[in-house]
Amino acid sequence: MTRFALTLEFDGTPFSGLQRQSNGPSVQQSVEDALHRITGEAASVHSAGRTDAGVHALAMRSHVDIAKPFDPFRLMGAINAHLRPDPIAVTHCEVVPDDWHARFSCTGRRYLYRIVNRRAPLALQRDRAWQVATPLDADAMHRAAQVLVGRHDFTTFRSVHCQAADPVKTLDLLDVERMGDEVHIHAAARSFLHHQVRSMVGCLKLVGTGTWDAARLAAALAARDRGALGLNAPAHGLYFVEATYP
Amino acid sequence: MTRFALTLEFDGTPFSGLQRQSNGPSVQQSVEDALHRITGEAASVHSAGRTDAGVHALAMRSHVDIAKPFDPFRLMGAINAHLRPDPIAVTHCEVVPDDWHARFSCTGRRYLYRIVNRRAPLALQRDRAWQVATPLDADAMHRAAQVLVGRHDFTTFRSVHCQAADPVKTLDLLDVERMGDEVHIHAAARSFLHHQVRSMVGCLKLVGTGTWDAARLAAALAARDRGALGLNAPAHGLYFVEATYP
Repeated sequence: MTRFALTLEFDGTPFSGLQRQSNGPSVQQSVEDALHRITGEAASVHSAGRTDAGVHALAMRSHVDIAKPFDPFRLMGAINAHLRPDPIAVTHCEVVPDDWHARFSCTGRRYLYRIVNRRAPLALQRDRAWQVATPLDADAMHRAAQVLVGRHDFTTFRSVHCQAADPVKTLDLLDVERMGDEVHIHAAARSFLHHQVRSMVGCLKLVGTGTWDAARLAAALAARDRGALGLNAPAHGLYFVEATYP
Repeated sequence: MTRFALTLEFDGTPFSGLQRQSNGPSVQQSVEDALHRITGEAASVHSAGRTDAGVHALAMRSHVDIAKPFDPFRLMGAINAHLRPDPIAVTHCEVVPDDWHARFSCTGRRYLYRIVNRRAPLALQRDRAWQVATPLDADAMHRAAQVLVGRHDFTTFRSVHCQAADPVKTLDLLDVERMGDEVHIHAAARSFLHHQVRSMVGCLKLVGTGTWDAARLAAALAARDRGALGLNAPAHGLYFVEATYP
């Protein structure tokens, strides 16, 4: 068996999520089906993150074991050919050691959340960003975001369906920057709870509109109670950007 | 009658083009239908440019005359509500003088052409950029592009369906820049011939791959013959960026 690491870009709009599930199409199933058609082997794809329906990826990292020998470059081309017309692309493929695991070896994950802050609905960026009509104070959002950076119990910012054993996580970075009419939120951590980024973004939006202030955000964190959450941002503004490995 | 200037953003993918036509849905028809539902009046929308099927707009300028009084801000909201689910958005609306004409008053038009220069097919940017797998030398493309800047007979770069009386146009700017794996081509002129930007981009792509050089591009221009064209770039990488008025 040879282990191949794949870098995946995908538009999450038509999928029920990255991981295989019974209730709809998934990125994992599309990639596994493509691999099966190429190799004739049952393929099992493991990925650095688990993204929800509608969440996008610029560079998800995954791995798969294949018994037949393949040149990584040719394998990448074959998977891309077989993925059509699904909006998934393998942008990189390489051979990795057998003990390299896309999920368990991953030591850092980065997300981007895109808000388009304007009155008009989105035409070109539909399903690619969250349109917020009320003017947002991105500087205030950035300052408040620093309340969440560090090691905390993120129960407030965690989906009730989250399966993580421990709600304590270390958030390494939560930066908010305005670029024209877009507000970008960058988040980095070793790992995240389910819905953590979207829940943090939702509350930061409340800060941006002046509904919340930094103290209110700190109180929501300290409450360690999902009921203290202000707002969960929609999935379609979220991008998995990068997974890092030692 | 009051004349309203509209700024339109649209995803050209589902349309046969901007202008109304018999063979498929158009941006113009969608906007006129929305206006008719709002005002009860037959609306006639005029625009700065005529874009082909698949071509996008970041800020097309258009105008329409309406007999009923409307506040421009409310009119914009009403049109956007009635445009759903079409991927068209009115991003600005204002009252203009009766002699202001979106097409005839326009003194400058700008386009952007986006190439994604990578091996893998496009997932997130599908229908939004032209994927070119062969590495492109953007500097060579930029240098060669300067051959086309200025006042020339652009017959080589003109669709056989072009209805302009005169093939002589003055190209003010044709800049090529690399941004990571994207190559952006910026074009500005008072006006363009039909397919001119796509035809110039197609030939610049041949320069970028080393198939053509600047001298070959100059010869194609001098030929004043559509048969001398190297390549017409696909529509889905093209964006109408801006229309300027005195």
